[in-house]
Amino acid sequence: MTDAWTNLEQRLRELNDYGSAIKLLEWDQAAMMPPEGGPARARAIATLEQATHTLFTDPELGDLIHEAGDSPNSDPASLRILNREYDKATRVPGELVRAIAEARGGAYQAWTQARPSSDFSILEPHLEKLLALKKEEADALGWKDERYDALLDQYEPGMTTKEVASMFEELMSGLKPLVEKVLSKVGDRPAFLHETFERDKQMEFCKWLVKELNFNFEEGRVDISPHPFTIQIGAGDVRQTTRPDADDLLMSVYAAVHETGHALYEQGIPVDILDLPIGRHASLGMHESQSRLWENQVGRSRAFTGFLLPQLKEMFPEQLGMITPEDFYRSVNHVERTLIRVTADELTYNLHVGLRFELETRLFRDELAVADLPGAWSDAMDDQLGLRPNGDGDGVLQDMHWSIGAFGYFPTYTLGTIYSAAFFDAAVKELGNLDEELGRGKTERLLEWLRANVHVHGYRYEAKDLAQKVVGGPITAEPLLGYLRDKYTGLYSDSV
Amino acid sequence: MTDAWTNLEQRLRELNDYGSAIKLLEWDQAAMMPPEGGPARARAIATLEQATHTLFTDPELGDLIHEAGDSPNSDPASLRILNREYDKATRVPGELVRAIAEARGGAYQAWTQARPSSDFSILEPHLEKLLALKKEEADALGWKDERYDALLDQYEPGMTTKEVASMFEELMSGLKPLVEKVLSKVGDRPAFLHETFERDKQMEFCKWLVKELNFNFEEGRVDISPHPFTIQIGAGDVRQTTRPDADDLLMSVYAAVHETGHALYEQGIPVDILDLPIGRHASLGMHESQSRLWENQVGRSRAFTGFLLPQLKEMFPEQLGMITPEDFYRSVNHVERTLIRVTADELTYNLHVGLRFELETRLFRDELAVADLPGAWSDAMDDQLGLRPNGDGDGVLQDMHWSIGAFGYFPTYTLGTIYSAAFFDAAVKELGNLDEELGRGKTERLLEWLRANVHVHGYRYEAKDLAQKVVGGPITAEPLLGYLRDKYTGLYSDSV
Repeated sequence: MTDAWTNLEQRLRELNDYGSAIKLLEWDQAAMMPPEGGPARARAIATLEQATHTLFTDPELGDLIHEAGDSPNSDPASLRILNREYDKATRVPGELVRAIAEARGGAYQAWTQARPSSDFSILEPHLEKLLALKKEEADALGWKDERYDALLDQYEPGMTTKEVASMFEELMSGLKPLVEKVLSKVGDRPAFLHETFERDKQMEFCKWLVKELNFNFEEGRVDISPHPFTIQIGAGDVRQTTRPDADDLLMSVYAAVHETGHALYEQGIPVDILDLPIGRHASLGMHESQSRLWENQVGRSRAFTGFLLPQLKEMFPEQLGMITPEDFYRSVNHVERTLIRVTADELTYNLHVGLRFELETRLFRDELAVADLPGAWSDAMDDQLGLRPNGDGDGVLQDMHWSIGAFGYFPTYTLGTIYSAAFFDAAVKELGNLDEELGRGKTERLLEWLRANVHVHGYRYEAKDLAQKVVGGPITAEPLLGYLRDKYTGLYSDSV
Repeated sequence: MTDAWTNLEQRLRELNDYGSAIKLLEWDQAAMMPPEGGPARARAIATLEQATHTLFTDPELGDLIHEAGDSPNSDPASLRILNREYDKATRVPGELVRAIAEARGGAYQAWTQARPSSDFSILEPHLEKLLALKKEEADALGWKDERYDALLDQYEPGMTTKEVASMFEELMSGLKPLVEKVLSKVGDRPAFLHETFERDKQMEFCKWLVKELNFNFEEGRVDISPHPFTIQIGAGDVRQTTRPDADDLLMSVYAAVHETGHALYEQGIPVDILDLPIGRHASLGMHESQSRLWENQVGRSRAFTGFLLPQLKEMFPEQLGMITPEDFYRSVNHVERTLIRVTADELTYNLHVGLRFELETRLFRDELAVADLPGAWSDAMDDQLGLRPNGDGDGVLQDMHWSIGAFGYFPTYTLGTIYSAAFFDAAVKELGNLDEELGRGKTERLLEWLRANVHVHGYRYEAKDLAQKVVGGPITAEPLLGYLRDKYTGLYSDSV
């Protein structure tokens, strides 16, 4: 008889192969597929997802996971993850899975109409239904302190609402006065940002930059899609996308740096564990820690912007010829009040996330009704950023997440940002100040450090344990706050 | 209880979804995948192919096919195809399927080494083994007159060796004297063909041309791959590739026209039958009839080359500025003795195929041993084209087909060419002479005719029945011979 672990490994490889096919279908859908291919593509993805679910919830797989604990060669960390995931996958009744899938379909469809019409009432009944089902799901999955824990756990395994709330409180209360001070001093958007930058040249520049940052093109690609993303298709195949917009040079450049952070993480997970449950990112927050670290701590630093500008001038001499390093550094760190999360700057971004986390937890504590969301959004926006939406379109309807049932996802953006600042501090503590090498565009030592301290572990540890291991102590918002205070004190030394 | 046909349709949709995933994995492998993604990709494809085979040979599916005959809504043509394919799929024992897959892997691997070394002995033992297994497979599938029928039937359902041999004999005996005469008169390769043509501009031209030929870009793409091919990923998604070579402008242009012929066929199959067995090409020969018709009867005609040249001159004024329409027409129809099939011209191409068909049938009749293949190849080449290979590399090893066990595939190239000439004659008979419109690049009437007479039927009829239906009588090589005689009489009027 074959060893249970050996059999289990074979099944995991097969599941990964299904996963590769699904991810390629999705990447292609966003980056390559002709417009009319949509309906057939959606069906093909649904079929393979259903097949994957059937393979994964097969009782024989459950038995193998159970028996493999006695196999001499088994990997305990992988079995821990499998136990956890098998348990979750089998706890939610099939009818509920199907009901949620249908409700998501309806709500997403309604959102695509509601947003351009700026009319929440189109989405409202669908969101009511979806929220009720997601509460049922949370109860089926189980939770200890509060229902929202079960949702958070799907994106940030092991993290609790209480822990997030505590970190967020520290961060938001420190951020708000800082934002107020900076906004009182900041000037208008720099004029060169309004120039036009040819899309082809932007792509050429982004590909060059991604390569400079040591993304391996033998094991990956960079393409264009409406929303930038990164996806690992299989071993030796990590793909990122960006979106050049002729009216917004910095957006595509910083999207490329951000996605390269994600992509370097994926390329850094050792190939020999890729077929095991430990062979992937530890959480969405951990993934975001990598993208934010490269985008902000590296990409928006005075040192690295000093490296970038001359390269950009070569590509766009007309538009950028007269720009000084100081102009450029201020521009990539320009702060402004905005209603929209995805275009928010580094300083105000986390206020947008804090607002969403608060509304989500209130929804799941039954303290807030779906019908009251637009008003609650508007009040929270006023409170956090001193702005009120013009309508639902640039308010409560701006993000897709809720319409696809992704409650619990938003906080991982800020968790990742909190991790990123703590990690960068730890890296500098060990490697010494990195300004000189970042000023030359040299990021190899930093990357090696991230490889050795984060990437190599994959999902061997839960994200918060890994984060503590990386920094050698508990994670708090203080490194992020300190970094932002220092940076903006430097930028507005007379005022902050 | 649900109707058997309804259940069957659901299973067919699921099988098509698996097929879409596999085809996308393959397209991407050839056109997009980064180099290091290869091994994981090969495994993912194998896993999904195995899963598809399991789904298709499920005895419950066999029962549904059987029961669906009594369903009031069932499609008899689809059931005929399904019966045939289910029967074939279940006749070959699983161990034999696996043994062939392994032998193919070994032989293909050996071929990739043997070809650059020009050393048949590297491939020989693998090919011996593979051939023996393919004979077993043919016997398991069953045949009436001779074993080779079973192989041919996999690519050209319903076609027999005897029928092919008869058409080929007619064709080859007519071709050989014509080739001799033309070759005795033809001059050197025109000088402009040796110029350099920028690859990017070639791609731009090819995409323009493909669009002119009414390929629908809302439902498809054109990309680059080492070997041009066309693939339908799913409804509304047909993709073709070409390969621009700076030293060979005409190759990429005519590859684009050829692949567009394949692609228009795929785009012409009605969307409402795509999930049924009738919703695809009738045979490889029928597919090739479409690519050859567009490439040769249209693309290499005096009328259409007259349309192409001014467009090409706009793109490549330096290289083509002085070329006359007559020069250009002669160049795209330049004939020469060549050892290599894939670069052979329209006139000599089918001699290369005839040679392979003859060797294949002798192998399967046990009249020729694998060890004697190189010598037999050399003799046949000398006999057909008056040339002997310099070694195995430009002789018996030049094509991949045998190393992957694709015996019975080659004849479909020439069958398609025979169909294409017969179809074009039938189209002209009905539509009138097309020269005037082809001279303006207008191909809509011809396309509509092909849509109505060929594409719309998909696989509702077997290819040879469909072909007879299209031309209103039996298919012979005479239309092709007549077309070639007319064309080359026009080109060398003093001599042929």
